[in-house]
Amino acid sequence: MKAPVNIGIIGVGRIGKIHAENIVSSISQGRLKAVADLNLTPEIEGWAKNLGVATIVKEPATLLADKDIQAVLICSSTDTHADLVVAAAKAGKHIFCEKPVDLTVAKVAAALDAVKKAGVKLQVGFNRRFDHNFRRVRELVESGAVGTPHLIKISSRDPAPPPAKYSAVSGGIFLDMTIHDFDMARFQAGSEVVEVYAAGAVLIDEAIGKAGDVDTAIVTLRFLNGALGVIDNSRKAAYGYDQRVEVFGSKGAAAAENDAPSTVKLSNESGVIGDKPLYFFLERYQGSFIYEMRAFLDAVIAGKPTLVTGEDGLQDLRVGLAAKLSLAERRPVKLSEIPLK
Amino acid sequence: MKAPVNIGIIGVGRIGKIHAENIVSSISQGRLKAVADLNLTPEIEGWAKNLGVATIVKEPATLLADKDIQAVLICSSTDTHADLVVAAAKAGKHIFCEKPVDLTVAKVAAALDAVKKAGVKLQVGFNRRFDHNFRRVRELVESGAVGTPHLIKISSRDPAPPPAKYSAVSGGIFLDMTIHDFDMARFQAGSEVVEVYAAGAVLIDEAIGKAGDVDTAIVTLRFLNGALGVIDNSRKAAYGYDQRVEVFGSKGAAAAENDAPSTVKLSNESGVIGDKPLYFFLERYQGSFIYEMRAFLDAVIAGKPTLVTGEDGLQDLRVGLAAKLSLAERRPVKLSEIPLK
Amino acid sequence: MKAPVNIGIIGVGRIGKIHAENIVSSISQGRLKAVADLNLTPEIEGWAKNLGVATIVKEPATLLADKDIQAVLICSSTDTHADLVVAAAKAGKHIFCEKPVDLTVAKVAAALDAVKKAGVKLQVGFNRRFDHNFRRVRELVESGAVGTPHLIKISSRDPAPPPAKYSAVSGGIFLDMTIHDFDMARFQAGSEVVEVYAAGAVLIDEAIGKAGDVDTAIVTLRFLNGALGVIDNSRKAAYGYDQRVEVFGSKGAAAAENDAPSTVKLSNESGVIGDKPLYFFLERYQGSFIYEMRAFLDAVIAGKPTLVTGEDGLQDLRVGLAAKLSLAERRPVKLSEIPLK
Amino acid sequence: MKAPVNIGIIGVGRIGKIHAENIVSSISQGRLKAVADLNLTPEIEGWAKNLGVATIVKEPATLLADKDIQAVLICSSTDTHADLVVAAAKAGKHIFCEKPVDLTVAKVAAALDAVKKAGVKLQVGFNRRFDHNFRRVRELVESGAVGTPHLIKISSRDPAPPPAKYSAVSGGIFLDMTIHDFDMARFQAGSEVVEVYAAGAVLIDEAIGKAGDVDTAIVTLRFLNGALGVIDNSRKAAYGYDQRVEVFGSKGAAAAENDAPSTVKLSNESGVIGDKPLYFFLERYQGSFIYEMRAFLDAVIAGKPTLVTGEDGLQDLRVGLAAKLSLAERRPVKLSEIPLK
Repeated sequence: MKAPVNIGIIGVGRIGKIHAENIVSSISQGRLKAVADLNLTPEIEGWAKNLGVATIVKEPATLLADKDIQAVLICSSTDTHADLVVAAAKAGKHIFCEKPVDLTVAKVAAALDAVKKAGVKLQVGFNRRFDHNFRRVRELVESGAVGTPHLIKISSRDPAPPPAKYSAVSGGIFLDMTIHDFDMARFQAGSEVVEVYAAGAVLIDEAIGKAGDVDTAIVTLRFLNGALGVIDNSRKAAYGYDQRVEVFGSKGAAAAENDAPSTVKLSNESGVIGDKPLYFFLERYQGSFIYEMRAFLDAVIAGKPTLVTGEDGLQDLRVGLAAKLSLAERRPVKLSEIPLK
Repeated sequence: MKAPVNIGIIGVGRIGKIHAENIVSSISQGRLKAVADLNLTPEIEGWAKNLGVATIVKEPATLLADKDIQAVLICSSTDTHADLVVAAAKAGKHIFCEKPVDLTVAKVAAALDAVKKAGVKLQVGFNRRFDHNFRRVRELVESGAVGTPHLIKISSRDPAPPPAKYSAVSGGIFLDMTIHDFDMARFQAGSEVVEVYAAGAVLIDEAIGKAGDVDTAIVTLRFLNGALGVIDNSRKAAYGYDQRVEVFGSKGAAAAENDAPSTVKLSNESGVIGDKPLYFFLERYQGSFIYEMRAFLDAVIAGKPTLVTGEDGLQDLRVGLAAKLSLAERRPVKLSEIPLK
Repeated sequence: MKAPVNIGIIGVGRIGKIHAENIVSSISQGRLKAVADLNLTPEIEGWAKNLGVATIVKEPATLLADKDIQAVLICSSTDTHADLVVAAAKAGKHIFCEKPVDLTVAKVAAALDAVKKAGVKLQVGFNRRFDHNFRRVRELVESGAVGTPHLIKISSRDPAPPPAKYSAVSGGIFLDMTIHDFDMARFQAGSEVVEVYAAGAVLIDEAIGKAGDVDTAIVTLRFLNGALGVIDNSRKAAYGYDQRVEVFGSKGAAAAENDAPSTVKLSNESGVIGDKPLYFFLERYQGSFIYEMRAFLDAVIAGKPTLVTGEDGLQDLRVGLAAKLSLAERRPVKLSEIPLK
Repeated sequence: MKAPVNIGIIGVGRIGKIHAENIVSSISQGRLKAVADLNLTPEIEGWAKNLGVATIVKEPATLLADKDIQAVLICSSTDTHADLVVAAAKAGKHIFCEKPVDLTVAKVAAALDAVKKAGVKLQVGFNRRFDHNFRRVRELVESGAVGTPHLIKISSRDPAPPPAKYSAVSGGIFLDMTIHDFDMARFQAGSEVVEVYAAGAVLIDEAIGKAGDVDTAIVTLRFLNGALGVIDNSRKAAYGYDQRVEVFGSKGAAAAENDAPSTVKLSNESGVIGDKPLYFFLERYQGSFIYEMRAFLDAVIAGKPTLVTGEDGLQDLRVGLAAKLSLAERRPVKLSEIPLK
């Protein structure tokens, strides 16, 4: 396929808008031709026109019927993802789908089947793989500088918890938050998770506990290649968004620290004071959204596999489900206990 | 004036192109309507069309005659700046002029007169004032966190020297390189320079010495408010672009360290190894070019003074000329020795 | 009791010698009066005379019979600790005992009983509580700056593994290495461990695996106060001794990074290169050995409880035994499963 | 000569006491045999007896007459240094003399003559050469890692100014404070200073200005090998003692940052807060006093040149005098303007 690729976006809420604006401003491999949103407000229409979008529609089906569109970005609500992946695949479109594809293995597996049959590309929106810091860690691992990986450590803490009722919709902390870390751990380890042990606690908001979820967790992973992994999560870090990754191996360790708005240090009678980390994922991962989109379009144009496949999304989900089971049954859970389909 | 402002760019070499692309991709207050370049190649025409530029001409005069254009960016070669400022002012355009306006006080002063008479805005392209790190230092100074400034320290080292013959055209290290640091020093001190002492050496490239310039320098500044300043320069830092600023005052110090591509540290048998600084000014000051353009357009729209005035440009030039004189005569030079007109 | 306290040291191998030299050079509260060592070589005699030690004997009993001695340091091999604690307590001496008191709960409990009956002080040699970095973390926690602790994170990696056969004598990684981290975790959490889950792997030396031990581990802790803890261990970090502690709580986080021989950074074409951490525990914890001894003598002189009690030693041992059981049975183990006596 | 060397200390004020205690506690190459102090209080006698000093006298001459003493440390007031060096040399003692030997070139030169004639060793107390950070910088320079030195940068700021009247006795900022930095600059450059330009200001305490001194300064140095140097000084840094050194050369840069009491960072809503630097020279240079004494005694024992010679002391003084002249006459001063004798 030749660049630029004609793109349609289904769902232009916060993340859909970010992709749209990035494509227009910073991504030469794609051209934003259409947007579809079931909740098509005048505000959205104005915003889309201003970006030069030719086709602005309500129904995803209308957008999928457009022969000129070669790739679609599925940015609608999670419960619509799997069906839209199937529909887009049947329409012969290459697909970028925000994470997660679905909260059930069965629906994800069915969607992947449809993608496979249609022979289209699918990339799942685990954008953190494209972050400048975490890519650099991975490069060092791949270069051999770290040696054989022994430990994968991830700190992942949000600046503020979502409303407690969000847990019900999202599948809980392991499926809406830690799932990013599971994907990062698999990415950095270069290996699949075979066992999960999750310890959790409700330390921030009792309502989260009442909703059946935890807000603080430590998850231990065992990988097929023998390495161990550990993730610590909190729904609320007073100092902002804490996103660190470390890979420790036989030859050394590569560790990514947080990003901050500036490098400035103020030295005074109180100490030496630096900036807090960038506030949340929109600030921290700003660049990664551009890089993931370029990578998706590069894969489409070159006819090569995407860098975050549907299979990755499925595995991340299974690790998340294993973590939920581990927490519920207070025991390590083998990934083989979680169905593949 | 209402946003967006219609903009014409005169000269679309490297820096002109950066401004053009930033306006299109990232600056909502302006619309790029025209470009003029005396060396109008098919490559430039293709590039401009792709950006959606309506008017693509050779002669600056043609662009300046366009009634729809409200602001011009002068990005042509330095020797044309002053005349173009005068012409643009006469045409009633608001002006963003790349630094320096000219290498002589007389021509700069004449250009500023023309601007004043025409009542248009002028912003000079000292982009570093808009850098995220250096703005943060200035914010801390203005907030009083540093107290009364006593010392302004700047390290400013390039990754590689320009060709030796460049010195003849550019006016030498103090007028093409250190002038940025003079502007930064005045910005951070919040005060004017009254005395300059420059020590220089040729340690990198003998050809630079033969061209009558130095490649390594330490410049001491005395400010009207009593503070002292010091700048160290090198044309060649083996580790890349070194750009640090520190303001030390009665209550503490604010210091900006270098930016790097990532925060990753590799720990191995050799030590703990972090990234080199971002390579050169295009990488290091990428964001500042956007912020300076937004600030210019905000000033135009709001009818307020620009944040880097023509007077700033003139003072920076006088400090540079004082440094040259100091180096030549091996003595401290009072700024009052350099003519105002 | 009045300072200085007369001290006898039983066992002057590596750690006994360190305490002896510290007392002579840096500790005003104590006076080194006697040493006993079953393996009394001429080298040891020469070393002790040079330090000005008055009494140099072979048998601990001889030293314990000396009425002038008020406090003993038990620095002999681990298998002799518990019996010597009992003997010293019966002799009415205050006791500093290197860790661990014993590898069995029964013998430790019996020794603590003897100490209690005799009414003497006992401090166990968990020196890391006295480290400048970790004390600072604890101070911040106690000051309330971190808020309620939610997560205690410890990285603890040695520069080189001990001989595989050492595991048999030492009780394995959880009792000879991680036990320090268990003590640190309890110290920082200010709470007792109630549940332990240990994941382990043999990634460095197969002989360690054959000896029934692991060389790489991640241990999850649950504390009585609700906080979670996690420790990662490796027997071999290519870059030296890695000793970091972080306490994350409702108001923020306090994190101690490694110490290095210097603060110097070399910037060159390869990057920005800092020192590796201090090599191993003798270098890293040099200061802590002095502080723990001062604290012991201060407690003796003031008649106050020691800062690392026999009870601490017992609890650390129980956590270690729980970790061993968890690893063996691949399940989380409640501390209540480990006997108290 | 054989270790340990018998040592006498003349003058046991603050720095004399530090050397005495270091010798007793940490320096195996020397034995403290005698102290002399014109102001011999009961407090000093008690302190000396407690250290095991055999000979405690008032008159330096008494100490110098002791045949058993092989080396003396001159730690009395500055105005007595030169005469005591001469007397000690005549008595055939090796000499460690606190800086400066004198504030006049003539007296220093005469003292050096006496030392030369007597064939004894002389080390001057520029202890910072023995600091762990600055030695590491020098090692990197000597290893070639930095390439040919181009710039030597030193920040040297005290936490609090001395009383204004101190300037009269001390010779002013350049002779009591910056002289350490001149020595450091010469040490790091591996070359002699040939020209000095000093800019100064009174920004902290007007009384210092009235006493004819400055409290804030920037000094530019030119070295024989072509390198440039710059020192910034302040008598009062709100955040404590600021002691940084950077050597920039053709292959890279080596930079020493401040030391702090701990590596701990507190992250909270206000930012990421680290410790202030160690408070003042006693804390910051604690280790260096031990290393300089070991080096002196090693030189005495091995019959080799000391690492900070009398010639170094003389040159540092001449640079200081050149800085004073430069400040007074507001012009760069060549070192050749300052007499050698």
